[in-house]
Amino acid sequence: MSPLADAAAPDGAAGDEARVALAGLLRVCEPPCAAVARFVGAQGPVAAWQAVLARRAPRAVVSATAARVDGVDPAALVARARADLVAARRVGARLIGPDDAEWPVAAVSSFTGAVGRGVRGSGPPLGLYVRGRPLAGLPDRAVTVVGSRASSPYGTRVAGEVAYELARAGWSVVSGAAFGIDTAAHRSALQVIRPVVAGAPGSAGAGRSVTVAVLACGIDRAYPEANRELLDFIPRFGSVVSEYPPGTVPARHRFLVRNRLIAAFGAGTVVVEAGRRSGTLSTAAAAEQLGRVVMAVPGPVTSAMSVGCHLLLADRFAQLVTGADDVLAAVGSASGAVMGAGDGAVPGEDPRHPTDGLEPETARVYDAFPARGSISVQDLVVESGLPVSAVLGALAVLQLHGLVDQQGPLWRRIRPDR
Amino acid sequence: MSPLADAAAPDGAAGDEARVALAGLLRVCEPPCAAVARFVGAQGPVAAWQAVLARRAPRAVVSATAARVDGVDPAALVARARADLVAARRVGARLIGPDDAEWPVAAVSSFTGAVGRGVRGSGPPLGLYVRGRPLAGLPDRAVTVVGSRASSPYGTRVAGEVAYELARAGWSVVSGAAFGIDTAAHRSALQVIRPVVAGAPGSAGAGRSVTVAVLACGIDRAYPEANRELLDFIPRFGSVVSEYPPGTVPARHRFLVRNRLIAAFGAGTVVVEAGRRSGTLSTAAAAEQLGRVVMAVPGPVTSAMSVGCHLLLADRFAQLVTGADDVLAAVGSASGAVMGAGDGAVPGEDPRHPTDGLEPETARVYDAFPARGSISVQDLVVESGLPVSAVLGALAVLQLHGLVDQQGPLWRRIRPDR
Repeated sequence: MSPLADAAAPDGAAGDEARVALAGLLRVCEPPCAAVARFVGAQGPVAAWQAVLARRAPRAVVSATAARVDGVDPAALVARARADLVAARRVGARLIGPDDAEWPVAAVSSFTGAVGRGVRGSGPPLGLYVRGRPLAGLPDRAVTVVGSRASSPYGTRVAGEVAYELARAGWSVVSGAAFGIDTAAHRSALQVIRPVVAGAPGSAGAGRSVTVAVLACGIDRAYPEANRELLDFIPRFGSVVSEYPPGTVPARHRFLVRNRLIAAFGAGTVVVEAGRRSGTLSTAAAAEQLGRVVMAVPGPVTSAMSVGCHLLLADRFAQLVTGADDVLAAVGSASGAVMGAGDGAVPGEDPRHPTDGLEPETARVYDAFPARGSISVQDLVVESGLPVSAVLGALAVLQLHGLVDQQGPLWRRIRPDR
Repeated sequence: MSPLADAAAPDGAAGDEARVALAGLLRVCEPPCAAVARFVGAQGPVAAWQAVLARRAPRAVVSATAARVDGVDPAALVARARADLVAARRVGARLIGPDDAEWPVAAVSSFTGAVGRGVRGSGPPLGLYVRGRPLAGLPDRAVTVVGSRASSPYGTRVAGEVAYELARAGWSVVSGAAFGIDTAAHRSALQVIRPVVAGAPGSAGAGRSVTVAVLACGIDRAYPEANRELLDFIPRFGSVVSEYPPGTVPARHRFLVRNRLIAAFGAGTVVVEAGRRSGTLSTAAAAEQLGRVVMAVPGPVTSAMSVGCHLLLADRFAQLVTGADDVLAAVGSASGAVMGAGDGAVPGEDPRHPTDGLEPETARVYDAFPARGSISVQDLVVESGLPVSAVLGALAVLQLHGLVDQQGPLWRRIRPDR
């Protein structure tokens, strides 16, 4: 085989022929293309690629690839696919497909169930160009953080704090490398490993991604250009990803299509700031369709940059989060069953306790109740060691949750149904 | 009967004996007292008061009044009740009870269904001391706006804008006269009538309340003291209310008890800013238990003053609102069903009034019409106390709404369908 062909092959992965086929398929159909994805899934990339070149594929596949195949010499298409792999290699990127060990199976598989429900730009990627750390495992322990390009100082600050804390807790921060919120998220996540750079330079490239940047253009391009340095740095501790062939320009529709991958790579999507008609909302919509946790950060009602977040929250489309703790709680509780035993950052399979989710002081007052019988506020003060005001506040909350009950001057626990 | 006794009686309302009984009952039991309320509801205030004095009441009633009745000469208790009425009269307050036309039947009746569910400080008020405009009609077209005493400039601004717009739309703004958000809400609602003050000082006291301040102390006290001027001004265009006997000091627990009335007097409760353990949250809890719409204004996640709001929103306990439009949409859609025609959900309340939704000035011009027959613009100016330009503007609006009709130089009301 030509040395060009496996130039961009990851170690111990699919062979040259399959990789050229993947590059060719990515080149001749504009993502997303559910019909081609299904065909490749059924036939494998090599047979599918041959069928596309020979125009012997199902009508939907032929139709989806017509614009870039019809009237073109098949040999030229193969040569172009090989050239794409070379171009990728030139920027340190590899092309991965479903047969590779680092393929993010869980992230991509979520499209299968969702296609019919109409995720904008539905359909899984056929393959992914990747620079940096492997994607395997996504969306496990990964959170998408997105928002407006024209972010406010407030939004930039909050995005940075959330991303930094997520990264510090060992979670990958997924975003789109755009100006504003995205850049703040990537940069802040990378702050976590800065000390490691000095102390252990050899660790670069190892371990899981600190941050994942998904591009709407070719892996060999930097968009926005001002983020070139960031995009060249990310692969040392994170990953830069694109499903577009090298050289692809970031046309407007590609951002919407790309957003479904940003949503798919995180267990949840946090919208930090978004204007009324922000493209960010399409990421939130995709996340919802993919069954991910959708979250939004509130802001001043006087800020146009928070209008989109407030719309998501007002419709109860998104869960309100005020920081990384909230994000981990929301994502952790949603994915607890999926994740199994983590390293403790995620409360996993513990059975529900009545005080789960309560403020510590509120839980303390609950715990001060006798197992059976009633208790006065004064005795709760003594038992809990909290001031009367705190006890009264906690009782109000507990009552709201249906956990306690007032009978004249006395209070008692309401037993849970089970 | 002593002239002292009906000193604080509203026009054409319950007689002297009943009013002294109400004052006495308010004096001898610390609100809220569901047992006494039930007893008074069943027996009427006069019989209930006699029974309390004679210690012939049900055990729960005797027990609830023991601290202030046992060992005290009944004649002294009656004298004290009469003295309370005099003290109220001295500050221009009247005592109203369930038999008075201005009793807020709908607001108070919501406690009956809620008692069993354990509203904090449950139980309706036995009577209310009122300064200023009548309370009849609450919670219809009224919204409660509450929040932290230690409000931020952001919260103060938003509370002011929301209250002003609500008042401009003809809604009453209910709050607690505390520093911070409450004060901003009352003051901003009053801005709506400022122009009228200059033009027609004699009109004070007429029409519905622009703003309602519910106190946790006696009606003759100003708390906080710095708001004395505000509390003395509110009765000109709004109402100041207390269920506590004159002279009562604002002890901490009374704020929590008072909060249930603040919640009950509005069709919905908007929390503008609240700290993590703010007493404001008890108002939100009471609103929820009373079946009111609970709303919260988001803010910067970096502000401690928005933490309480974000807790309410994160638990989906409150509906997110960003301004008066959101509030009216939330309250309007929720109350549409409740207030529906003739289903008895809100006893004693006319579900729709022709002037619902009109600007206060426009409504005032409408109210200046004779019930039948015609009236000239000049007479409308005299009747309404508004300048000619305002009357002409209002007439144009009323005509657009199909509420009035012009016949040459004269105008008359068009009778509503029913």
